[in-house]
Parts: sequence; C-alpha cells; structure tokens
Amino acid sequence: MRNLITDVPGVLVGNAHDARAATGVTVALFDRSCVASVSRLGGAPGDRATALLEPEMTRGAIDAVVLSGGSLYGLDAAGGVSAVLCKQGRGALFGNIVLPAAVQAILFDLMNGGEKDWLRAPIEHRPPYWDLGRDAALAVAEDFALGTVGAGYGGTTANLKGGLGSASQRTAGGFIVGALAAVNAVGMATIGDSKYFWAAPYEQGCEFGGHGQPERVPPKALTLRFKGQPVQATATTIALVATDAVLTKAECKRLAIMANDGLARALRPVHAPNDGDTVFAVSTGRAGPGGEPPVLTELGAAAADCLARAVARGVYEAVALPYANALPDYGRRFGR
Amino acid sequence: MRNLITDVPGVLVGNAHDARAATGVTVALFDRSCVASVSRLGGAPGDRATALLEPEMTRGAIDAVVLSGGSLYGLDAAGGVSAVLCKQGRGALFGNIVLPAAVQAILFDLMNGGEKDWLRAPIEHRPPYWDLGRDAALAVAEDFALGTVGAGYGGTTANLKGGLGSASQRTAGGFIVGALAAVNAVGMATIGDSKYFWAAPYEQGCEFGGHGQPERVPPKALTLRFKGQPVQATATTIALVATDAVLTKAECKRLAIMANDGLARALRPVHAPNDGDTVFAVSTGRAGPGGEPPVLTELGAAAADCLARAVARGVYEAVALPYANALPDYGRRFGR
Repeated sequence: MRNLITDVPGVLVGNAHDARAATGVTVALFDRSCVASVSRLGGAPGDRATALLEPEMTRGAIDAVVLSGGSLYGLDAAGGVSAVLCKQGRGALFGNIVLPAAVQAILFDLMNGGEKDWLRAPIEHRPPYWDLGRDAALAVAEDFALGTVGAGYGGTTANLKGGLGSASQRTAGGFIVGALAAVNAVGMATIGDSKYFWAAPYEQGCEFGGHGQPERVPPKALTLRFKGQPVQATATTIALVATDAVLTKAECKRLAIMANDGLARALRPVHAPNDGDTVFAVSTGRAGPGGEPPVLTELGAAAADCLARAVARGVYEAVALPYANALPDYGRRFGR
Repeated sequence: MRNLITDVPGVLVGNAHDARAATGVTVALFDRSCVASVSRLGGAPGDRATALLEPEMTRGAIDAVVLSGGSLYGLDAAGGVSAVLCKQGRGALFGNIVLPAAVQAILFDLMNGGEKDWLRAPIEHRPPYWDLGRDAALAVAEDFALGTVGAGYGGTTANLKGGLGSASQRTAGGFIVGALAAVNAVGMATIGDSKYFWAAPYEQGCEFGGHGQPERVPPKALTLRFKGQPVQATATTIALVATDAVLTKAECKRLAIMANDGLARALRPVHAPNDGDTVFAVSTGRAGPGGEPPVLTELGAAAADCLARAVARGVYEAVALPYANALPDYGRRFGR
C-alpha cells in the first residue's frame, strides 16, 4: 500500500501546475468507466458535468474526476482531460463517437500571489486550465506527489499553506478505500496555531507527523479564524473518495455524503458560504458488492477517515509559495 | 415587442456557429448580474457552473447563460464567454479580481452530419466551443436570428430539423416574460407528421404558421416516435426564461420548474432518459416584486407558454442542414 488513492485498483492520478500563475490541476483517471456520484456541501461550488452524477440521471459511469484551481475560470480543465480520453478511445460510445465524462470541481486560488495573466487579457491569453487538464491527464500514474502540486499547488488554509493530500486503508471487510483532497479551506486544519491536526484521531502511523492530540484544547485555540477579511474571499476543499466495492450510483452518493464528514472532522470551519466543498465518490467495482447498509456504513466511515487524513497530509506535505506575503508551510513551522 | 427574449429589458442574445461542424453556441448576457436558478428534468444533462444556482448556495447572481451544441465537449463554451465578460469587467468582484458566472447547458448534436474534426484529433484540434462562446458573447444584441443558428444550428427533432426559438409576452400584471430555446428534442414538436404543432394552443398571431390545431388527433399521430434507433442517441432541449420581475433565487427555481411545463406541452416525448432538458430562469429585477404566489403563478404560466411557443418557433424557423440524410425542415414540408 502506498497510502494513496491509487491503492484502489484501477485508479491513476496525475498532476500539472503553472508555477508562475501558482495554480494547477489534478486528474484521477480510471482504467474503465466507473459508477460515481457527488455531495456538495460548500456554499460556493463550481462544477462541470456534475448534474449527470445524480441518481435519477441516466449516465451510469464516468471516466475522470478533475480537481483544479482557477475558480470558475478553471472549469476549462475538464475539456483538456476529455481531449486526452477521446484520443485514447475512452468514454461512452454513441455509434463510433467517443464521449468521455470528465466531472470537475474547482477551488478559488486567484488571490494567492501568482501572476494570473489571463485576468488582464482574458481573450488574448486564455486561462491555462485546458492545457493543465490535458497535461495532468497525460501524467497519470500510480505514484504521484503530495503537497504543493496539482490542484493543491495554489491552495491555502486560514493559517498555513494548503496542498494536495491522499490516504488509503483496507476495511475490516477487505475492501480498499482511498481519498484525494485539494485543500484550500476557508478554515484551519490545525487546532489553533499548534502543531496538532484536527484529523489526529484518525492518523495512521506518522503520516502527518505523529504528534497525536493535546489532552485539552485551550479555549483560545477555538477562537474562530477563517479567510474572508479584508475582502470576501472564496476558498474550497475538493475531494474524491474511491473504493473497489461494487456500488450503485445512489450508493456512491451515500458514500460521498459520509465522506464529507471527513472534511467536517479535519477542518474548522468548513462547508461555509464561501467554501465550495465538493466530494466525489467512485466505485471501481473490482471487488464484491458494498451496498448492503452495514457494508456501506463501513465503507462510508472509512472514506470519511481517509478524507480527514488526506486533508491533514495535504497541509503537512505542502511547501509555501515563494511570495513575501505567502502563508507559511507546516514543515517550516513544526518540522516534518 | 420583437417577440424575442430580448423584450425583457436588460437581456441581450448572441449566436455563433461553425458551419462545417454543424454546431454552434447561443449566449444570453445581462446588463448587470441577475438572480437565476435552474430546473433539470432531462435524464442526460450536461452542465457547467450550475450547482451555484441552487437556492442554498451563496452566489446571488450570474452574468451569462450559455446554450451550446457539442454535448460534453461543448462545455468549453462558457470559458470563452467568461473571457469576454472578464475583459469587460463584468462579474462578481473579489478585491480587484473579476469573476463572472457563466452557467451553461449543452445538447447532443454530434451525429448530425457535420465534420467534428476534434473527434479524430482532439488534442491537436481542440473542440471549437471556447471560440464559439467568445464569438457569441461578442455578438450579443437585441435582435438575433432564429432557426438554424447558434446552439440550434445542429439541432434536430425526431422528424424535423430543430433550431433556436424565442418568444415573449406581457402578463396581465404588466411584467414581461421571454423564453429562448435550442430545440434538439428526442421527440417531436408536431402532432405526428402533420403541420400542427403541439404548442398550437399557445400560439400568438401566426408566429409559427397560424394553423391552429386539428379537431381530433388521429390515433396514428400518437404512435410514439423518438430518436434512439439504431444507436442510443442523446438529444436535449435547453432553454432560458427571463422576466423583469424581482425574484429571489428560490423563486427563480420555481419559475424554471413551471417553465419546464412548456417543454412538456410542446414536445412529445420529452424529459426522457437520453434528453438533457434543462431550463434556466433569470430575473433582471427591473420591475416590481414577483414572488407572491399569485404573481409568481402568473409569471410561471407565462414562462411555460413562452417556452412552448419558443420551441415551436425554433422548429418553424429552421432550415435543413445541407447533408443527404439530413432531416427536412418544417418550411419545406408545410410552407412558411
């Protein structure tokens, strides 16, 4: 086990970024079309091709999940991913026409210090996301980097640099569950300014430092701090959970809803008005059926745990952006 | 009154198409950000940035509605529209960053005979939709063409060429309501193969021929015919209704839901598993409040009537595509 979402057989992940613009894209591709759904609990979502993920909609399977920076401008990324999938002949077939489904969510990293050239000349200089989506799709592999990479490249939290995180585990029932998160939270992943992560109870090994948690949380650490001053700023943590269990679309929706609880445990506050927090859930269907309520409960709990851990790892592995006012990274403050 | 959605003050519409590919894009822009929501009743929707339209989401207003061909490939179009809006400084402001919201729905016109070059070489030849979105946004005006134009360029129905339609009316309460539809229905807009439109009861003047309706509908005309043979083919009618009444987002959602009834009255079958039928509703807010239930009922009924009429006009005004196997157009069969 790599402790990555790619431990779920059939899932590959690729990253691409634009260092000057301080933004990027992460793509998860599947070796065959997968059943999937979504849960959106943030108040400011930006999405592409996600309506088809609702259980009452016809399309039964998708080919890619795209996480990206750029806020609404970033929604071009799934176009580049779709081009790669089309070229590879992957997607639903209508006659001889290949129609891949690349679903996408975005995060807001437009004010992180990077040079967003397109904001000054958007027609002459297109936003870079179509290209970044293409490049991330071409880069997919079982191994991929965490921290200041891909969709997490430009991400931040209220007090520390954010980033891309991932984690996986095997359930008691023998299923594999994995999570992938691009952390750009409106709130904080740490308990106040301490080295302790909110996700500490779920940590496996020393995957994000192994510091455990404090015996008591001092009231000062509960003082609410979040992005939004001086300008109203959107944020957003976007994520994917995957399992090898066979699930229907409605069961994937349940998995996504339970996985969103992992965000609730790892970030405070979260699901806020200017967060676009969105969690996709995918079933690769390589193992046995996972839809019976006790089995799905175990899968959902594992997905929530994995997602909480992925969030902490995303912050733990991040490296600060090279700007004077950039938020510090966890490693420089507390060691890694 | 032009009998177009642009009769609603503050709404402009632009079209762009690619004749070789037999596809296109229609954009509605608003002179200031507008409250909006959406109702999706088709089983195969393709959408971009529509999650923010739900009443529980934060964003209060949008800047453009984009209707396009290309199925999921077409979802690049809102990127080109956003570039134009960004350049014009139109959208929500975060500090000095302009973030327009261009929401989009697509229809499936990939098998209509046009040369979709990108399907053969999707990385080298990007789909044309980003450019078409840009061009349509740059072309907006109060007057715009109907029929084989914009998002309706490549559209068809089960028996006749589809197209872009529009209609408007003033309610008894003095509000203006307009509709815009790109008709690519899985079903039929006419009663069997007759000259009569299902939307006939709502026709104003001779806007789609003035033929009225038959005294009796012969059983044969009810024989169900729809796209889907020999290959499973997706279809989709996508639409926008607009009013100058002041509405909240939840009230716009109600308006969109009632407007969808116009599709039910104008097309048979509709809202099918391979239809992605989606109706946006926008309030430009130039007139008085429209949210009280009796007022909103009148607006919703007018929106449904306008949308039914817009569908019939889209078919009535269409000109057949220049391919040997192309569906005939209404005008050539029944006169115009």
